[in-house]
Amino acid sequence: MSLTAIDSQISAPLLTDPATASLFQDAAVIHAMLEVEGALALAEADCGLIPEDAGTAIWAAAAKTTIDPAALATGTAKDGVPVPALVAALRKAVGDPHGQYVHWGATSQDIADTGLVLRLRKALDLHEASLKKLASSLAGLAESHRQTPLAARTRMQQATPTSFGLKAAVWLSAVLRHLDRVPAIRERLLVLSFGGASGNLAALGDKAMEVEAALARRLKLASAEAPWHTVRDSLIDYTNWLTLVTGTLGKIGTDVILLAQNEVAELRPGSGGGSSTMPNKVNPVAAELLVALARQNATLISSMHQAALQDHERSGAAWTLEWLTLPQMVIGTGAALAHGGAMISELTVNADRMRANIDASNGLLLAEAASFALAEHMPRPEAQALVKEACKAAASEERHLFDVLSETTGTSVDWEALKDPARHMGASHAMIDRVLESYQRFKG
Amino acid sequence: MSLTAIDSQISAPLLTDPATASLFQDAAVIHAMLEVEGALALAEADCGLIPEDAGTAIWAAAAKTTIDPAALATGTAKDGVPVPALVAALRKAVGDPHGQYVHWGATSQDIADTGLVLRLRKALDLHEASLKKLASSLAGLAESHRQTPLAARTRMQQATPTSFGLKAAVWLSAVLRHLDRVPAIRERLLVLSFGGASGNLAALGDKAMEVEAALARRLKLASAEAPWHTVRDSLIDYTNWLTLVTGTLGKIGTDVILLAQNEVAELRPGSGGGSSTMPNKVNPVAAELLVALARQNATLISSMHQAALQDHERSGAAWTLEWLTLPQMVIGTGAALAHGGAMISELTVNADRMRANIDASNGLLLAEAASFALAEHMPRPEAQALVKEACKAAASEERHLFDVLSETTGTSVDWEALKDPARHMGASHAMIDRVLESYQRFKG
Amino acid sequence: MSLTAIDSQISAPLLTDPATASLFQDAAVIHAMLEVEGALALAEADCGLIPEDAGTAIWAAAAKTTIDPAALATGTAKDGVPVPALVAALRKAVGDPHGQYVHWGATSQDIADTGLVLRLRKALDLHEASLKKLASSLAGLAESHRQTPLAARTRMQQATPTSFGLKAAVWLSAVLRHLDRVPAIRERLLVLSFGGASGNLAALGDKAMEVEAALARRLKLASAEAPWHTVRDSLIDYTNWLTLVTGTLGKIGTDVILLAQNEVAELRPGSGGGSSTMPNKVNPVAAELLVALARQNATLISSMHQAALQDHERSGAAWTLEWLTLPQMVIGTGAALAHGGAMISELTVNADRMRANIDASNGLLLAEAASFALAEHMPRPEAQALVKEACKAAASEERHLFDVLSETTGTSVDWEALKDPARHMGASHAMIDRVLESYQRFKG
Amino acid sequence: MSLTAIDSQISAPLLTDPATASLFQDAAVIHAMLEVEGALALAEADCGLIPEDAGTAIWAAAAKTTIDPAALATGTAKDGVPVPALVAALRKAVGDPHGQYVHWGATSQDIADTGLVLRLRKALDLHEASLKKLASSLAGLAESHRQTPLAARTRMQQATPTSFGLKAAVWLSAVLRHLDRVPAIRERLLVLSFGGASGNLAALGDKAMEVEAALARRLKLASAEAPWHTVRDSLIDYTNWLTLVTGTLGKIGTDVILLAQNEVAELRPGSGGGSSTMPNKVNPVAAELLVALARQNATLISSMHQAALQDHERSGAAWTLEWLTLPQMVIGTGAALAHGGAMISELTVNADRMRANIDASNGLLLAEAASFALAEHMPRPEAQALVKEACKAAASEERHLFDVLSETTGTSVDWEALKDPARHMGASHAMIDRVLESYQRFKG
Repeated sequence: MSLTAIDSQISAPLLTDPATASLFQDAAVIHAMLEVEGALALAEADCGLIPEDAGTAIWAAAAKTTIDPAALATGTAKDGVPVPALVAALRKAVGDPHGQYVHWGATSQDIADTGLVLRLRKALDLHEASLKKLASSLAGLAESHRQTPLAARTRMQQATPTSFGLKAAVWLSAVLRHLDRVPAIRERLLVLSFGGASGNLAALGDKAMEVEAALARRLKLASAEAPWHTVRDSLIDYTNWLTLVTGTLGKIGTDVILLAQNEVAELRPGSGGGSSTMPNKVNPVAAELLVALARQNATLISSMHQAALQDHERSGAAWTLEWLTLPQMVIGTGAALAHGGAMISELTVNADRMRANIDASNGLLLAEAASFALAEHMPRPEAQALVKEACKAAASEERHLFDVLSETTGTSVDWEALKDPARHMGASHAMIDRVLESYQRFKG
Repeated sequence: MSLTAIDSQISAPLLTDPATASLFQDAAVIHAMLEVEGALALAEADCGLIPEDAGTAIWAAAAKTTIDPAALATGTAKDGVPVPALVAALRKAVGDPHGQYVHWGATSQDIADTGLVLRLRKALDLHEASLKKLASSLAGLAESHRQTPLAARTRMQQATPTSFGLKAAVWLSAVLRHLDRVPAIRERLLVLSFGGASGNLAALGDKAMEVEAALARRLKLASAEAPWHTVRDSLIDYTNWLTLVTGTLGKIGTDVILLAQNEVAELRPGSGGGSSTMPNKVNPVAAELLVALARQNATLISSMHQAALQDHERSGAAWTLEWLTLPQMVIGTGAALAHGGAMISELTVNADRMRANIDASNGLLLAEAASFALAEHMPRPEAQALVKEACKAAASEERHLFDVLSETTGTSVDWEALKDPARHMGASHAMIDRVLESYQRFKG
Repeated sequence: MSLTAIDSQISAPLLTDPATASLFQDAAVIHAMLEVEGALALAEADCGLIPEDAGTAIWAAAAKTTIDPAALATGTAKDGVPVPALVAALRKAVGDPHGQYVHWGATSQDIADTGLVLRLRKALDLHEASLKKLASSLAGLAESHRQTPLAARTRMQQATPTSFGLKAAVWLSAVLRHLDRVPAIRERLLVLSFGGASGNLAALGDKAMEVEAALARRLKLASAEAPWHTVRDSLIDYTNWLTLVTGTLGKIGTDVILLAQNEVAELRPGSGGGSSTMPNKVNPVAAELLVALARQNATLISSMHQAALQDHERSGAAWTLEWLTLPQMVIGTGAALAHGGAMISELTVNADRMRANIDASNGLLLAEAASFALAEHMPRPEAQALVKEACKAAASEERHLFDVLSETTGTSVDWEALKDPARHMGASHAMIDRVLESYQRFKG
Repeated sequence: MSLTAIDSQISAPLLTDPATASLFQDAAVIHAMLEVEGALALAEADCGLIPEDAGTAIWAAAAKTTIDPAALATGTAKDGVPVPALVAALRKAVGDPHGQYVHWGATSQDIADTGLVLRLRKALDLHEASLKKLASSLAGLAESHRQTPLAARTRMQQATPTSFGLKAAVWLSAVLRHLDRVPAIRERLLVLSFGGASGNLAALGDKAMEVEAALARRLKLASAEAPWHTVRDSLIDYTNWLTLVTGTLGKIGTDVILLAQNEVAELRPGSGGGSSTMPNKVNPVAAELLVALARQNATLISSMHQAALQDHERSGAAWTLEWLTLPQMVIGTGAALAHGGAMISELTVNADRMRANIDASNGLLLAEAASFALAEHMPRPEAQALVKEACKAAASEERHLFDVLSETTGTSVDWEALKDPARHMGASHAMIDRVLESYQRFKG
């Protein structure tokens, strides 16, 4: 079907990236569940719980069977979960006499959750790789624009000079923290969901823990300390990580949009989008998308946390809420990383315009610097008051702040030298170095 | 594709209703936009802005052209909106010499938004009809269970007797308010989005308002007072209505789930779902779904309100956020109405068990009544204190509260007569009558 | 206490307006509940349910008693609701023999909810008045800046000329819709909450409906069709209205922030805020606040809708969630209206800069107009392609688009005349007229 | 003031815990900012940037000065941030000649953010300690109820027997993961915010990094790699941790409420709350509160993520949104831990009723076990089908499932022995052991 924007054939290329999306196609969902059923049968055969032939037969059938998603629809609508229908289909594919051993002692949620974990393992790999590429682009910008003066803007007003390199390094610092967070996310997320009907694996008798260990080994996942059918913190925490990632991309997108405004024109994000009626338009489509996807995740994370309130040993309502929410979050993150990564790698930096915008302020951007320069000759509050007055005069008379100040103060400040933005980079080199050094860990 | 749960062929029948879903299929999205382009051409021909032949030719082509959604994907990915590619495709379908008059003076958002409005008009019709059916079922329950005693539960503890009829009437009262809200929603939502590039229809010259009126007439929509490209309150308000509707269904679902617990067993919602491992299970799948869909909308509405913060005359970021959010809300509401309506119409009410659960309280449910009965013979606080003591005794000694009271108080209260739950229905008949009378307005 | 930002003595003046805030002070909360208890006693005396003297005595005590909020804290912590402690305090204030008739047949939620409704009635009056003032300011801007050319920006890029008057009229159109919505909100919200223990007023015997009517009369509220203890749509709908209002203010704030950037400088919002270290800064504090408050409400509305899923006849969990959410929403709306209203009334419009920013585009803003002018001499797609080429040349060669076009096209277009932005106002006058006419309904 | 529910003197004891709340009182907020200003002055004196006497004088004044919160209100309302007014007050307190060196080279956000971090360090300590206490109570329940049979409920229907000990161990497993997450949260959160006006510490000249290191040392915080004025992931991640914690408590609260229903009666949470009209009521107030606080955080986390989209080098709008959101989240978590911890430690477990509820199912809870027992004698699908039929018969004829089965199947299953719930505990001992062993790490 094509009901939602990310499933629409019209907008999918805008709103998804193919690699992440492929993990959520019906075929991939079914394949992952079959992989779990197959591994379960092998594990149970390993432990002598089911006949060895049955284990091999089920594993083979699970590996080669293709189940039509539509064939699971009726069962899913009735049971609220696709696994009973999937088990029936797999049993049929296995046939007699081994079919009866399919899904032995497991519950639907074991299969669905573990299947999800297998797919999220791949998503984590993809997104980690994308983050590393993004980090590389940002490291490049931080390094090459160390000396490129840029007007810092605070509260949406020009503040003081900084460098575009530091701006990129700040973006990068957040990306590096997201990479830092990956191992802990992996460790908690990549575990079996395996508890049987009510969490105690009762149907497996005294082989339960042995089967669990064998299944974990087969799927290269860890065992959970206790069944997490209704304690979902690790999954929610993962979606929080996704939202942190898209939040950083949304912050970058926000800055890019603002710097790409015609009146600012310091950045130009790639090729841009056209208009149906205005031939002049080059729209920052990718940057806007980053904002939209970040806000979407910032909203959807709320549903994941609401779904933490699961009742008893399995919650139909809360679990369904997860299904309605999680795919959009993972796919949206993939799209943001793909589009954001491309945007950053193709970014055109207009250093001349950055400098021109600083100069156009007639020295107002250097007001803090002026107040500190004067403070070497008088108490700082006095210096600040003087500069504040001079700012008003400079603005209304359209003169350079330093010209006003050199008139109104008799001090020996070398105002001309102070005009060079390069003198106002502060500790940006040291900060950039620190971030780039931290980046080394994730390189290559 | 099949990425999200509602687009998955596996779970779509669980999570969607076909009628609402059909309005969001790519074909329907394209069809509605073409309908707007066709009507626009006719309207512009009506006003002499474009040649009459061009109007007819464009209208005819728009009516019969089928555009492959995938053919719009590249353009959409580039421009962030499908309309430029759609216009190009339609121009090609119209051919020379009239193709140039396609989309004359309009902007992408005019077409996309007005196309959306045309589809939401149908969604409103569908959902209003479903609400009426639901109201009818609830009115039936309210009427037929006027006298069916039920333990009211407050703060998840048994409180006093009430009737199941009143419970249904309370549910119904909310449904009726949702129906009441429809005309105002329709009036504000079913308007043209028509402003041209920047909202002032400048490209239409002095024919602008005339074309607008003609287009409104053609599409049977009202004109907006001013372009709503970036003031989206009417659209957001509509999604709030959706969320109110699913919220009521979620409240009903919550009650049904609770009343269907094995230990309560007062309701049984239809056939229920099965388990992959437990042959005994009959799960309240539909009721759980109502809860999940209500919580989903309760989250998604937040994105719609976040998207109210649109920049200037068209916001790529905020508009995209709407696309990512709105379809799920409309479709989810349709699913909730379909599944909720079916669930209520098939509800099995176990009046015996309702009565038995009241009786099992050994009169504790009648504690308030007892205190009012005693208050005819003593000050009410004294009566309340006496009853509170007696409640403790009744609970610990497993005796009927009234037996304890008749022992501890020497009053002439007719305790036996007071045991009949029918005596504790209060004003429920009058309340039910009031709701049913209100319901008359919406009846067939 | 001073735990939250809006309760902090430090930030309250920034984040609240005194009039709305006063409705949520403990004293006001208690006063409103006492008003309900007093009116209830009079109503019950009116109907002969309690002695006439008791009615008068309770009403008088409720009117003059002051209850220390801290005195209710222990009871509230124990019972989860302040009413039992309040009733005890009022009974004590009334004394013997009438104290026993306090709260006769009512439940805690009747008192708390109806008290809330009484306070929200005042909030609605306040906010409606503020909206009218805001509408008046916006109408003034729309009228006086009808002819002030402004660059429309779509997708954060300059698009075509429009007028600042139309921009203000678009803002105003949303404000007028919010005013339009008020009567329906009032009608549904301003109703009694009165159902007794479980909603059927059983403790009032056959006087129930009579008491209800008398109480409604006393409090000048309507009766609800059925108790709304756990169907909260009218309350939620009201908070949606609040969020629509702050959303519009957030949109206005967004535009103001963007237009106040140093590089744009078309608007200046009042006096602005200072920096602790930069003497040059004039920050758009009020506009930023509008954005923050809009986003806060856009998030909080989600909790109100989550709280729609109330269990049975009274939900401690969902009701508590409302208390945690609603005050912030009402107070935040009051603050946004107060700060937003002041900001708009003090807005400095820099028409010269608006014109200068248009001119700085070297005609690119007039690209759509050029394509339509050329389309009188050639097919429109051809005209558009020509203009698109010319845009690139104009940008790279820093020449005026029309100079490029008059060179590259041999047409008889009067390019000089076309340069006047006043020629590109389109239907803005008619649109402004329509909005201003609509505004007449709400004028003083 | 007392505007919000958590600041109201009426409800604060219900909705807050004193220890966490004290960190958000105005006095604590001011104290923490003064602590940062004092440490900054010492650090700058350490590095020779300001006179040593000035450092000591400022530090001393910051330590002993008390600033009236109300005195900061006017400045905060004007500047949108309290720091300029605070700096002015501190300068005044320091007096000449050292006052001018107050806040040297810092920006408002450095002070406010670092002050916040100092307070959140304390909150983390408090909450970690509370989590450990909660873990201890849960470990006690897991151990002592290893053998207490309980009906597991899946999808709100009885499923199979499990033990209450395993239920507690599952709750505990989530609590332990929250404890596990603390060190990483601490490492990223407990860092200086120190960047000066625009993030590059330009006003500190070549002493910048040295001052930063000295300040970090003084405050026992780490340095950030780059200024995090507008990359807020570490702060957001912390609020996600809070929401995970309250989510787990909300899940526990949900289970407790459900198990405390009159018809279930397996748990009784402490003393409970009373009703204003029903003497029989004992409401699970604390458990309801856990649900409400969990849902509040699940909503509020969305605002924190929305606030990730900060513009440029300081965002007034997004930063203000954090202030409006964060205190409620920290305080709500403190309240949930306090009330939840007390509730669990006072929980009354009714093992008899747990057993009785299992027995009342007439063996339906043992349906899965029956199907596995039969599967030793026939293919499992056949066994399942047989049991499914027998379940229907057992339910309609009100007979024990095993009696039906022993009649309909001629197998040699020892049905009587199978009736003992202790035989259906599965691997719960091993799972409980695993969780308890993991708990050892956090034990006092």
